[in-house]
Amino acid sequence: MIVYGDTASGNCYKIKLLLSFLNIEHEWRHVDILAGECQRPAFKQLNPNGKIPLLQLASGETLSESNAILNYLAEGTEWLPQQPWLRAKVLQWQFFEQYSHEPFIAVARYIAVYLGLPAERKAEYDSKQLGGHKALAVMEQQLSQTNYLVGSGATIADISLYGYTHVADEGGFDLSGYPAITDWLQRITEIAGYIPMKDNEL
Amino acid sequence: MIVYGDTASGNCYKIKLLLSFLNIEHEWRHVDILAGECQRPAFKQLNPNGKIPLLQLASGETLSESNAILNYLAEGTEWLPQQPWLRAKVLQWQFFEQYSHEPFIAVARYIAVYLGLPAERKAEYDSKQLGGHKALAVMEQQLSQTNYLVGSGATIADISLYGYTHVADEGGFDLSGYPAITDWLQRITEIAGYIPMKDNEL
Repeated sequence: MIVYGDTASGNCYKIKLLLSFLNIEHEWRHVDILAGECQRPAFKQLNPNGKIPLLQLASGETLSESNAILNYLAEGTEWLPQQPWLRAKVLQWQFFEQYSHEPFIAVARYIAVYLGLPAERKAEYDSKQLGGHKALAVMEQQLSQTNYLVGSGATIADISLYGYTHVADEGGFDLSGYPAITDWLQRITEIAGYIPMKDNEL
Repeated sequence: MIVYGDTASGNCYKIKLLLSFLNIEHEWRHVDILAGECQRPAFKQLNPNGKIPLLQLASGETLSESNAILNYLAEGTEWLPQQPWLRAKVLQWQFFEQYSHEPFIAVARYIAVYLGLPAERKAEYDSKQLGGHKALAVMEQQLSQTNYLVGSGATIADISLYGYTHVADEGGFDLSGYPAITDWLQRITEIAGYIPMKDNEL
C-alpha cells in the first residue's frame, strides 16, 4: 500500500502513527502541501478533492479523508472496537475532531507556524481561539472521567484527537488549564510503537 | 430511542430520513436551534458540545454527530455495506461532507435563509461560494460514473450528502450545471419511505 502525505500535516501524522503502532509495511510518498502539490492535476487524478493523506491499494483504488483511512487500517485490530455502540462513539469523536476541533486548532497553528502569523490573518487567528478552547473543554470533560476517549483502551479516536491536540500550543492554545488532556497526551506517547510528529521519516 | 433535533437543520434531517427509510420507531424531541436551545445547560448536560442531532438510548447513553448516528442506525441494514473497503468509502464521503461541503453549502444557506443575508455577513456568504462549488464538482465527477456515491445501491453516504445538497440552491448554488447530481437527487426521492425536509413532522 502507498500513503501520500506530508509530515507537516497533523492529518497525515495520524496515519503514520497508526501505521507505526500496527507495524504495517507501506510506501510513504511525500506530497509537499505548502508547495501546493495537492492541487496539481497529477495528484487530483488520484484525489479529486485535492487533499492528503491519501491511501492507495495495490489494486490502484484510493481512499481519502484521514479518519476514513484510520477506520480502514484499524479494522480487526484493538484500535477499533467490534461492538457497534463503541464503534459509533469512535466515529462521534472523529467527526467532532473534523468539525469542532481541527478547523480551529489546526487552522490557528497553520496561520502561526506556516504563515508566520501575518497581520492580515491576525483577526482570523484570534477568531479561532474561542472555538478551539470550546473543543478542548469538551475533551477535558471526557478525559477527566476516562483514560481514553472511548471504552477502556486507546482507539483510533484517540489518534484522531492526538494529531492536532499535542501541538495545540503552536496555535496559541495553552494546555496547562487542561490537566486531564495533558495526562492523556502523555499516556499516548507511552504506547509501544509511538513515533513523534517531528523527525518521523519512516 | 429518543432523537433530539430541529427539522430546520439538514444534519437533523439526515437522521429523520434514515429513520423513515428504515421505519424505525422513535421519539423526536424538538430542540429549537435558532432560539439557542442547544447551548442551554439542560441540553449541554446531554451533549457537552451543544449540538444537534443527538441520539439517546433507553439506557440514557447518548451519541452525537449526525454521521456517527447514521452509522449506528444503519448497521446491519442495506444502507451500510459489510465489506470493509465499502464501509471506508462511505466514511470517506461522510468526512468529505462535514469538512469540504457542509461548512460552505450549509453555512451559506444558513446566512441566506435564516439570517436573511445581512450586509455584515455578505462577504462571508460570498466567500462560501467557491468552496461549495468545489465540493459539488467532486460529487459530480463521482455521480457521472456511478448511480450512488458508494457501491451499487444507496447508502448512508448518499443520505449524508443529500441533506444539504438538495437545498443548495437556497445557499445560492445553482445546480443546473451539475446534471449527474440533479439526477441523483431525483433518484433519492424515489426510494420507498422518502420524506421531504419540509413538512416532515413525524
